[in-house]
Amino acid sequence: MTAPLRVALLGCGTVGSAVLRLLEEQAPDLAARIGRPVEVAGVAVRRPDRHPDVPPHLLTTDAHWLVTRPDVDLVVEVIGGIEPVRSLLLAAFGAGKSVVSANKALLADDGVELHAAAAEAGVDLYYEASVAGAIPLLRPLRESLAGDQLRRVVGIVNGTTNYILSRMAETGHGFTEALAEATDLGYAEADPTADVDGFDAAAKAAILASLAFHTPVSAADVYREGISAVTSTDVARAAEIGCTVKLLAICERVPGEGGDSVAVRVHPAMIPTTHPLASVGGAFNAVFVEAEAAGQLMFYGQGAGGDATASAVLGDLVAVARNRVAGVAGPGVTAYAGLPARPIAETPTRYHISLDVADKPGVLATVAQEFARHGVSIATVRQDGHGDAATLVIVTHSAPDAALSATVTALRGMPAVRGVTSILRVEGLS
Amino acid sequence: MTAPLRVALLGCGTVGSAVLRLLEEQAPDLAARIGRPVEVAGVAVRRPDRHPDVPPHLLTTDAHWLVTRPDVDLVVEVIGGIEPVRSLLLAAFGAGKSVVSANKALLADDGVELHAAAAEAGVDLYYEASVAGAIPLLRPLRESLAGDQLRRVVGIVNGTTNYILSRMAETGHGFTEALAEATDLGYAEADPTADVDGFDAAAKAAILASLAFHTPVSAADVYREGISAVTSTDVARAAEIGCTVKLLAICERVPGEGGDSVAVRVHPAMIPTTHPLASVGGAFNAVFVEAEAAGQLMFYGQGAGGDATASAVLGDLVAVARNRVAGVAGPGVTAYAGLPARPIAETPTRYHISLDVADKPGVLATVAQEFARHGVSIATVRQDGHGDAATLVIVTHSAPDAALSATVTALRGMPAVRGVTSILRVEGLS
Repeated sequence: MTAPLRVALLGCGTVGSAVLRLLEEQAPDLAARIGRPVEVAGVAVRRPDRHPDVPPHLLTTDAHWLVTRPDVDLVVEVIGGIEPVRSLLLAAFGAGKSVVSANKALLADDGVELHAAAAEAGVDLYYEASVAGAIPLLRPLRESLAGDQLRRVVGIVNGTTNYILSRMAETGHGFTEALAEATDLGYAEADPTADVDGFDAAAKAAILASLAFHTPVSAADVYREGISAVTSTDVARAAEIGCTVKLLAICERVPGEGGDSVAVRVHPAMIPTTHPLASVGGAFNAVFVEAEAAGQLMFYGQGAGGDATASAVLGDLVAVARNRVAGVAGPGVTAYAGLPARPIAETPTRYHISLDVADKPGVLATVAQEFARHGVSIATVRQDGHGDAATLVIVTHSAPDAALSATVTALRGMPAVRGVTSILRVEGLS
Repeated sequence: MTAPLRVALLGCGTVGSAVLRLLEEQAPDLAARIGRPVEVAGVAVRRPDRHPDVPPHLLTTDAHWLVTRPDVDLVVEVIGGIEPVRSLLLAAFGAGKSVVSANKALLADDGVELHAAAAEAGVDLYYEASVAGAIPLLRPLRESLAGDQLRRVVGIVNGTTNYILSRMAETGHGFTEALAEATDLGYAEADPTADVDGFDAAAKAAILASLAFHTPVSAADVYREGISAVTSTDVARAAEIGCTVKLLAICERVPGEGGDSVAVRVHPAMIPTTHPLASVGGAFNAVFVEAEAAGQLMFYGQGAGGDATASAVLGDLVAVARNRVAGVAGPGVTAYAGLPARPIAETPTRYHISLDVADKPGVLATVAQEFARHGVSIATVRQDGHGDAATLVIVTHSAPDAALSATVTALRGMPAVRGVTSILRVEGLS
């Protein structure tokens, strides 16, 4: 066995510490699998005094120096965020280092530029850990399904919102109470914006869509709605029609007359409780893939946590290390398809709408007419009378989101409609 | 774009035809993903007259000539069985061709020899399609989880037996009737031995265990019990304790005083209906993976069918083609661990045992004593009296299989025991 491969670690929080520990614990196995031992060359952190467990001679605050050092072969980045990481990774590529990253925000924003820089340097850029923690997902999309045509990727990729929505369903509480509970238990961060407003899921959706459709998709192309507007009424209404509310990341290839386009969106939706994604609870993640030839596939596992994320990082590390030993770079990400992004307004979706109306003859007809006027076809309608009022629960067929949205606006203005009590998109109904 | 990569196809049944069709339909995408177009150089079949859809100039009966032709770059094998395929693949490696195979029996029997031949020739051997059809499973095990330690791989990997067991649960029918129904519907072959006796699942288990534990495991190392002895009583008893009966392929790394060993077995077992594998119905396959750092993962999808299997074949084809374009071979399969196979007798399992006993004082004590005498600890026992007889339903804790088996033999010989009405292993209970 020859000289060790030397790894620079950027960041040493929960994931970074787990990477360091596993690198040590599994050193003999990793060496056997790679063909050369792996050694930590240095760990870049902001505050060296906060890392008493790391041998002091490895710690440095100069990340740029570390990633360009000639004795470093591979860079593992678990800092997160855009800058300074973007510059550091570009510097690493410039110095001929392969990179393993867990950085969803950066990959979603600057994936194209980073891939180009890696390709130009003839090195690898892998980032399995950036989406759905330990679940092998990006490699299956990049490689296992490379001979197939993907139609849809639908996933629960954010554990915090999944926990909150699960608790709302279990307790009947509203969003605010469920968020407070999640914060108390450490499932939500002090500033939960990135999770509850769907930014985290949108970044992951962009990465998934880019790989699935061989098309550059950035976070800005993703339609995004968080869960803070989901009410206990929405959750109760979902249960009434045999559904549960989940925050979904949905990546679709939509056929059109002028050619296919790619629609990527993150929003809460009702899905049938019989759908495989419905039973994904708490901090687990799951991603459902539909491909032309392969049919339906599902991937399930832990979406977060230091060890789970570190497992994905180390899997990538073995891959780039093997490539380094063989003196090659792995296959890059192809973006040849360059499909246009489809705006949400033109994306076909289905709505569940719950209305309080006056209970008199003709109201249903008037309401139904409003749907027809916008070209929206109704799949099911249920009318429950109580006193002089009635509740109409309507599930539509698929229609462009703009038409559904316009229908809702028109319904709100109708004299017979006393209130629109719940609106949510519906997915996975046949 | 340069000259096409030329593919030799061996076999043209359901999967082969699907591969040919998809190669044509997806030619532009495959070319873009690989960097060079792919072209079919020839199709080896036994009876050319039976393949009117294949251009006649491509058909040949001389498979050996085809795989060694200088104008062939890659070989796709979907014939199945051991010989002549083994010789053909060795000839292909000898001639410097990379191979994609869907052949579980061959890989389970001769995986070590074939991998060695591929490595010596500096070419690739991929076989994602050999286990669980379209579900990306071997690549995740080989690569995504290469930085982790696997503990267990538990799967439903045979659709025929899964269909039969599902129907037994739904209808209350016995094995014979359910098999007849499966045969009528085309879910079971005229000679169902390979499926119902567990040979198919055992081959897949050997492949999974080899990759999961970096250890050569062949089909002969796999303990195997089929489902023909599963009775409607077994299925009913399972339901009574909140379980369902599945044919499981179980690959475990078992810690021991003298070091770890690998236990690989295929047998019917009761699993709780809440277990993710319990709801895998009909022809679907699912594999559950437990890893040290990644935790629990599940992979789910279509386990068979021409298109689904062809998707896995084409994914591998893209991978070996990319390697060919780059002038490299992908990472081989490592078998450095060389863990010993643990015989079933020494493998820890749990049993569910249902007994008809005389309903008199002291019987339970006598029975319990027999378990204790064999060192088997009882987890739960339920006694239902009816007239002068009673039913004892016992679920044990984990014990070496030999001890459980000896306990059952002893119980059969006890005067107080009128009959042992159901014995099945239990998995997935906490």
